[in-house]
Formats: sequence, structure tokens, C-alpha cells
Amino acid sequence: MMKFIALLTDFGLRDGYPGVMKGVILGIAPDAQIADISHNIAPQNVLEGALALARVAPFFPQNTIFVGVVDPGVGTSRRPIAARLGRQFFVGPDNGLCSVLRERVEKQGQTVHFVHLDQPRYWLPEISNVFHGRDIFSPVAAHLANGIPLEQVGSPIHDPIQLELPAVQQLPNGWRGEVIMVDHFGNLATNLQREQVDTVANPLVRIAGVEIQGLVRTFGERPAGELIALIGTQNDLVISVVNGDAARQLNAGVGEKVEIVAGES
Amino acid sequence: MMKFIALLTDFGLRDGYPGVMKGVILGIAPDAQIADISHNIAPQNVLEGALALARVAPFFPQNTIFVGVVDPGVGTSRRPIAARLGRQFFVGPDNGLCSVLRERVEKQGQTVHFVHLDQPRYWLPEISNVFHGRDIFSPVAAHLANGIPLEQVGSPIHDPIQLELPAVQQLPNGWRGEVIMVDHFGNLATNLQREQVDTVANPLVRIAGVEIQGLVRTFGERPAGELIALIGTQNDLVISVVNGDAARQLNAGVGEKVEIVAGES
Amino acid sequence: MMKFIALLTDFGLRDGYPGVMKGVILGIAPDAQIADISHNIAPQNVLEGALALARVAPFFPQNTIFVGVVDPGVGTSRRPIAARLGRQFFVGPDNGLCSVLRERVEKQGQTVHFVHLDQPRYWLPEISNVFHGRDIFSPVAAHLANGIPLEQVGSPIHDPIQLELPAVQQLPNGWRGEVIMVDHFGNLATNLQREQVDTVANPLVRIAGVEIQGLVRTFGERPAGELIALIGTQNDLVISVVNGDAARQLNAGVGEKVEIVAGES
Repeated sequence: MMKFIALLTDFGLRDGYPGVMKGVILGIAPDAQIADISHNIAPQNVLEGALALARVAPFFPQNTIFVGVVDPGVGTSRRPIAARLGRQFFVGPDNGLCSVLRERVEKQGQTVHFVHLDQPRYWLPEISNVFHGRDIFSPVAAHLANGIPLEQVGSPIHDPIQLELPAVQQLPNGWRGEVIMVDHFGNLATNLQREQVDTVANPLVRIAGVEIQGLVRTFGERPAGELIALIGTQNDLVISVVNGDAARQLNAGVGEKVEIVAGES
Repeated sequence: MMKFIALLTDFGLRDGYPGVMKGVILGIAPDAQIADISHNIAPQNVLEGALALARVAPFFPQNTIFVGVVDPGVGTSRRPIAARLGRQFFVGPDNGLCSVLRERVEKQGQTVHFVHLDQPRYWLPEISNVFHGRDIFSPVAAHLANGIPLEQVGSPIHDPIQLELPAVQQLPNGWRGEVIMVDHFGNLATNLQREQVDTVANPLVRIAGVEIQGLVRTFGERPAGELIALIGTQNDLVISVVNGDAARQLNAGVGEKVEIVAGES
Repeated sequence: MMKFIALLTDFGLRDGYPGVMKGVILGIAPDAQIADISHNIAPQNVLEGALALARVAPFFPQNTIFVGVVDPGVGTSRRPIAARLGRQFFVGPDNGLCSVLRERVEKQGQTVHFVHLDQPRYWLPEISNVFHGRDIFSPVAAHLANGIPLEQVGSPIHDPIQLELPAVQQLPNGWRGEVIMVDHFGNLATNLQREQVDTVANPLVRIAGVEIQGLVRTFGERPAGELIALIGTQNDLVISVVNGDAARQLNAGVGEKVEIVAGES
């Protein structure tokens, strides 16, 4: 029984495009429960969408169907795809949008299975060149929710697009990574993970020309306005300002280099 | 069996006004499935709301009840209304908010039926002068979802307010229309339709002092940053910038004139 | 039977944090109906969140479970709590976020009952220091929705944090209050209530150096652009600009003093 459908797009919340997708889904699968993940991914920013999907998906139930639409190649030769990713599903463009989640699922030893959506009988009758989220992805997700098997909505493929994530670099006395996400609060989330952070004794964090001595456990340990480093919601190294906005205070964004190195003891 | 209720307002997403409407609906019709279309219609912009509703509604299931609240006349003599519009329903103010959808439905040969909401027993017990979305429209929609017939919530009327849409003008060698919507991506959607565009050989599009040669099928056919014209999600002529923002690049908005004329061949 | 869960946070709508909460809830309570109240409370602004919750909650059904997360003290010694507030429930941090609602419920003679969430078997297996909305509050709310009694998810407490609201001051010829909320339209909502307003004959409203003669019933009674005072959605004194933005026009925000005094007759 699959019935949860979760939506991730760059459509924004003004024009009603996500609403259209909901209408299409409910017309085909009236019992589906639809949840919004985000419709505010930066326009055409596939990597931002891929990271958001990977962050969110593990907390959704088994058999949830994620519909992801950040799709600058809509209507071109980029394929529409669907996939089983371990115990969940993805429907969207073949541009890497589900590739960060895919990597995570494979690392956990779960299987993935991709299909090229080439069965128009599971689409809307009329297909525009510019809105496959409405015309292809939503109806396919609804049919999957209704129990149509993945194998029936498309033909197997083995070469879905995989995005390259920025690599972490080992230093003599620590690690160098970078900011991969700035959240609503201005927190700077990096690609440095807890297992790397934990190898560094007496750590010193360097970013945007400033140094932060040591990590704190949580925001409230320091006074408002203080720059801190801590382990974030993703077991990642995060740079924050207590009750403030680190991105603005440091004038730093995605791509900003971050080092964590052993301090003098 | 009606149970989908879809909400369109200018309330924004900060203050919880749409949440209040959901609470009221669920208190009366606990089985209703509520979907958000948009709560970011520009404040008091009835035409923008009317266009959004007409865009979105055809993709929602039969019997969906649309609650629309863009309502600068709340509490004045403007009537609260409900309507059957073909196979769906509308509840909201009588200010033209559903009139674009109504026109579309009538063009398709479906019937419409309007009532003036004059039966307070289907409203909340206390009625404010400033929030009929909460006090009148949401409860009426919930009662409709529960199966109360339209005829019971109000008295028939035959003169609901109809908005004038900007007209398309025929030129010797093409058509003149205008931008009627700017979307989240900065795409400029016009009132020129595919059937008009198709009459123009070798088309040249003029807007804001620039000319665009020919139409493309979709965004990805041209390099990022290029100005293009194409048929959009509504079978309408749309001016876009590939992976960019045409509204900003052309400094153009709603009302900007657009011509499509036959080019030299 | 409790099954409605309503969410109020300062998480914003870009990063998918509210989506994560929905995923966690649906994984535990697949039949829960989740409604968003707001995810755009100003970051760390507990009072703004508390006022929004109190505004919205009375319109939600009996047994609704409100999950509130405006939580600058996450991971510190501030307690995670849950409460029965009359006929509804609250789950969130013990920082006063539910205290305005609590006061209202107690004034109506309904009982409240608070517990300290100290039963990790109702939480996610791994608890971060920075996202209790995901790890503690959402799972507890889902278990409550599943019928687990409040007494089972935590131990009784009698000293939850109570926020001080700005007091209204009586004047010789009227009242002095202040703006406590600026809404999406720029309306300025005050802590002056209808029962106070009603004691003032021929009222004159003073704010930010301007005077408004008398109250109107609703926006549409005056021409666009005119500054008005009226009774708002909360039976509160509200200062507005017809089809405009009073906050911007008066350059006034939360904390701005407002007086209503008897005019000369």
C-alpha cells in the first residue's frame, strides 16, 4: 500500500503550479496523502533540490513517492524517469535530482531500480513541452500510488544522471570542505560530517577569514550574536550565529571553503 | 461525493489566516481533503486571483470546491456567493474572482448556477466584518463537502460580477495582446493564444522594445540567458529568458504590450 | 479519536524542515491529517508564535494537536513539553509558546494539564541537539494522535513558562495599548479589545503622530489609501490603510503605542 506523495519543486508558492500538481494527483489517486517538502528550491538549481531531497526523504515512511521537479531541461531530450530507491520511490527528470538520495540508499546496501517513463498511457492526454510536473510526473506518481508497478510505467535504464558533490579534502591536521547549503536561519551547512569532525582534537574552524574555537553542542550555550560551530541536523558541521544569521554576518554562501583543523593544545 | 476543497487567497503564509480556514473546514467536514492553490495572490488583486483560479481549476477533480478569498469589499454590500461551475464548485465574494473560470466553463458548454449566500445557519455563529473567508466561505464550503446541496446554502442569482479581460487586437499582419501574468520564474504570460500564434507565418515577437525571431518549443533549446518566445503551460504565448528572469531583464510586467507579426520571408 | 495535527514553526518554507516533520508524523500516525498554520514566524520570536497560536487554535476542531516549534533554547535545559489545553493539545518547547493560548483557555474555565516529555520511547531513536521538532515533538504528537494518553508521554509539571503580554493602560478619557502584530497586509493589530473600545464615546485613535476620527465597520467603507481604525478578526482594535499597507505608511511596527480616547462631541 503506497499512498504518501511528497512534492519538491522550484515552482514557488504564488502561481499555483504545485496546486495544479495536487489536482492532477487527486484526480487519479483520490486517496493519496500529499505533503509539501519545498516549492522554494532556487530556480533551476538541481543540486540544491537534490540535497534537500536527500535530507528529507529518510524521515518519510516506507513507500513514499517523491515527485521532484527542478527541471531546466523540460521538453528536451532529457528523460523523464521513475525509480525505486530502497523502500521509497522517485518520479521526476533525469538530471541528477534524486542522485544524492540514490547514493545514500546504495551506501546502506539497499537496491535501486530506474525506469525511463515511456508509457504515455500513464500521463495526461495532452503533454506540454514546458510542464512535465503536471503532465507526466504527477500522473505517474498517482498511478504508482494506486498500485501500478514501477515496471509498468517505464523501461529499465541503468545510466541515470549522477551529480558530482564537492569533495572533502584531507589536510595534514584536519579537513577542508565547503558550505553546501544556507538555510532559512542563515546557518551554513557544510559537506564535513561528524565522523571527520570527530577525528580532529581541540578543533579550530576557519571560514571567510574568521576562526571559531571549538564546537558547541547547541545554539543556546552561547550568547545571542556569537559565531559558533556545531553538529547540525544532518550530522554535518554547521556554522551559525546564535539567534542571528551567519550567512549575512560572514557574507558567505554555498561554495565558501571551510576548514576544521587541530588547534594548539 | 464531494470532498476536495482547494484554497486560493491573498492572505500570505505568515499570519495563519489560511490555517484558520482549514481549522474551520475540518471542524465541520473532518473528511475533507484540503489543498492549497496559492495564498500569495497580490493583496486585493482580484484579476490576478481570477486568472490563477482559471489556470488551476481544470486540473482538479470533479466536485472540487474552490474557496477563493481576494476580497477588498469584505463586509460591504458585495454579496457572498457560491456557484456550480460545470462539474466543480466555487465559494467566495461576488467580485469577479471566479468569472474567468466561469467564462471558460460556459465556452465548453457546461452549465453554471450561482447563489447568494443568505443562509446564516451554514456560517459560523459570529460573523466579523473583515474575515468572511473564515466566517462564511469556509463553513459553507465544508457544508457543501458534507453533501448539503448548493440550493440550500443560498438563493439563486443571475448577475454575478464579471471581470473584463484585456482584449486581443488583430493587426494587418498578426496580433497585439499584452502580458497578463508574471510567474515565479519571471516568465511573461500573455493573453495571446496558440490558435492566434498559429496563424502567423514566420513569426516575430515584439515586447518592450525588443524583437524575438521565431518561437522555440521549450527552454532548453537555447543557451542560458537568451530571450525566447514559446507556447506556455496554458497554450499561451510566453516570453522567457532561458534559466533567467524575463520580467527583470525586460523590466516588463502585467499590461506590457506584446505583438506577434509575420516576419519577412 | 484525535487525528488533526497542526504545525506552527519559524522554519520557513525553503529547506524542507516542515516536510521532515510531516514525514516523521506520517511514519508513526499514517492516518493523521496535517495542516500548516504558519512556518514563517520570525526566527526565534516566541511571542509572535504564541500570539499566532492563540489566534488560530480556537478555530480548529476538538482534539487537534498543535505542534509549535519556535525554539531558540533547543538542546539546552529548556524542557520539551506537551499539554492538554481545554479540548486541544500542544506539543513543543517550554518557553511560553503556548502560554497565550493557555491563558485564554483558562479564562474560559477549561482545564490545562502539562507534562514534561521525559519518555524517550516516544521519540525518534536518535536525538539531535538542534532539531527537537523532528526528533521529539513530531513523534510525540503522532503518538498522541494514535491514542497514547498524555500522561504516558511525560511527567506532570505545574510551572510551564508564561510569557508576559504588554499590558493595556487606562487613561482618564480612554485607553493606551500597543501594536502586537503586523499582518501580511500591513494591518496593525493592537492589544486593545472591543470591550475597551466600546467604553469610549466618539473615539479618536492616535498612533505614530497621526489621529484617526472614529471607527469604521470594514475596509470598503472608505476610499483606497485612507487610514482607518476598525475592529479586526480578533475583536481587537486594528489600524489599516484601505487597500494599502498601514505599517509602511505609518512606519510603525510591533510595540508602537496606540491610544483611543473620547473625542470632543
